[in-house]
Amino acid sequence: MKPINVGLLGIGTVGGGTWTVLTRNQEEITRRAGRPIRTSVVADRNLELARGMTGGQARVTDDAFSVVNDPEVDIVVELIGGYTVAKDLVMQAIANGKHVVTANKALLAVHGNEIFAAAQAKGVMVAFEAAVAGGIPIIKALREGLSANRIQWLAGIINGTTNFILSEMRDKGLPFDTVLKEAQRLGYAEADPTFDIEGVDAAHKATLMASIAFGIPIQFDKAHIEGISKLDAVDIKYAEQLGYRIKLLGIAKRQDAGVELRVHPTLIPSKRLIANVEGAMNAVLVWGDAVGATLYYGKGAGAEPTASAVIADLVDVTRLATADPLNRVPHLAFQPGQMSDLPVLPMSAV
Amino acid sequence: MKPINVGLLGIGTVGGGTWTVLTRNQEEITRRAGRPIRTSVVADRNLELARGMTGGQARVTDDAFSVVNDPEVDIVVELIGGYTVAKDLVMQAIANGKHVVTANKALLAVHGNEIFAAAQAKGVMVAFEAAVAGGIPIIKALREGLSANRIQWLAGIINGTTNFILSEMRDKGLPFDTVLKEAQRLGYAEADPTFDIEGVDAAHKATLMASIAFGIPIQFDKAHIEGISKLDAVDIKYAEQLGYRIKLLGIAKRQDAGVELRVHPTLIPSKRLIANVEGAMNAVLVWGDAVGATLYYGKGAGAEPTASAVIADLVDVTRLATADPLNRVPHLAFQPGQMSDLPVLPMSAV
Repeated sequence: MKPINVGLLGIGTVGGGTWTVLTRNQEEITRRAGRPIRTSVVADRNLELARGMTGGQARVTDDAFSVVNDPEVDIVVELIGGYTVAKDLVMQAIANGKHVVTANKALLAVHGNEIFAAAQAKGVMVAFEAAVAGGIPIIKALREGLSANRIQWLAGIINGTTNFILSEMRDKGLPFDTVLKEAQRLGYAEADPTFDIEGVDAAHKATLMASIAFGIPIQFDKAHIEGISKLDAVDIKYAEQLGYRIKLLGIAKRQDAGVELRVHPTLIPSKRLIANVEGAMNAVLVWGDAVGATLYYGKGAGAEPTASAVIADLVDVTRLATADPLNRVPHLAFQPGQMSDLPVLPMSAV
Repeated sequence: MKPINVGLLGIGTVGGGTWTVLTRNQEEITRRAGRPIRTSVVADRNLELARGMTGGQARVTDDAFSVVNDPEVDIVVELIGGYTVAKDLVMQAIANGKHVVTANKALLAVHGNEIFAAAQAKGVMVAFEAAVAGGIPIIKALREGLSANRIQWLAGIINGTTNFILSEMRDKGLPFDTVLKEAQRLGYAEADPTFDIEGVDAAHKATLMASIAFGIPIQFDKAHIEGISKLDAVDIKYAEQLGYRIKLLGIAKRQDAGVELRVHPTLIPSKRLIANVEGAMNAVLVWGDAVGATLYYGKGAGAEPTASAVIADLVDVTRLATADPLNRVPHLAFQPGQMSDLPVLPMSAV
């Protein structure tokens, strides 16, 4: 079947991971999607990086607008980040009738209402599983898996940098500044860590989840945001002595009068599952009136975990954008006729 | 918009939960699905129960075949259970071009290949989120959320009855037989508990997950199955002294030569998240090559948690069966024009 063509904007950490996983798992992904998903063009300011990564398997350009205007491109994957150029590129892609997959929580938290309205008017999809909690399919769970429920609240460890810092402060009894420097050295925190440590990144993600959970427009400007930079090693120590761990939570909660939307350090009894989510891991707890509590746990960042979410969106868009009803989501994930003949082993062989 | 009509087969525990949640959350569910989901007819051998439950809001019959042959019915929800009548009903519904939603793991583990092939040929959906792990959207995670990954293995606590028994044996140091009787008294175990305690139910579920994870046909007959009825309180005590908990796991693992598919009691280090899943809760760990480990946790049984999954499937089918591309999965879960005006509260009001 004719491949669906992807234009990849940005081949840094997540873009590189996306290229790598799409290439490595191409055969399985095609069997699931029903069509090959082919990255036909890659845009990056660093042409050398892009050429090295793609090894001649895709056209390479430093002009991202040429990608969103390329009539051959069916889906634009936006992994540039930021609000300005990324927004123009996404809006132009939509105007050109292309589907968009993005990991850009900042863009969607600030301009999502405008972007989704434009996509709606054009009849294209803007998929953003990778924007929240990396590889955990939490957007899909909230939007589809829990659609029966009146969701009462959700609370998540949705920023790996701050969770890593808090875990290290607790484990090693070190002060915030020392651990932050260590996190920067290890690549868990950026050179300018403000968005992470001050809770802005978590608030972007909580804002998106709140909209999906409660069906409200995206309202990042209303979020209450408090980060972890004022926490002291002694706070964490006292909390532990009292049987608590301190976690930076993104919280969205339904009240009669409206929705609470807040990010702040929170004391959680140590026995709770979510209190035991350590290091750079993410977890989201969701409480629905029918299902009760459900929890989703996994890697919230990194090249391949985030790529996992980007590609899941590509498969979704490919499955859904195909008019043939038989090519929608297959019962057993893989398309009929594309099943594996891998045998189930007898126990003697295990 | 014209409602989509559901024919509900069985209004016992899960059927009753489905009716209750569909009624209670009707307004939100409609806003998510894009069309009202209306239960137009209910079939149950117990007409009095069905009449009492539906209170005149749906036609009631004791002839389930009249429902699957009813030209007004768009989606058949099969909650009767078992292999025989349920199979005939599902096959007849498919032959009549109706979509099917079912919670029947036994039916799908044994006859799923035939059922899905018939559905495929007819261009209808057979959705079964409720068949595995109750309200946890694990089928969706495996089939859609993790579609980028070469899945290496999955392991789940997917039978609430046995997990409840093992938790009670550990907490109270009681023997298996005593705790089983208590579980029966509390409604956590059935009068004939064989399928649960001997691991058959967990094997049904593991078989379905293995097929989705690895793209292999359903092969329940190849599963290695060992239950918990031979476990002694002393086994659990010794395990604990050595730093382990005993859990009944359903495991599917990829090897070069094929797939391991097995259910048996397993020692898990007590520090692991999954070792701390207690009582009737379920959890599934999935390891994908890109995403690494992800975990999904929630209620694995019960009226409303299972109904949550049944209704999620109804919303999925409603969204996907609607030809209008603008009525597919909406960006923020709720249909445009159906968003809430619930405000985000200022922190002073929280």
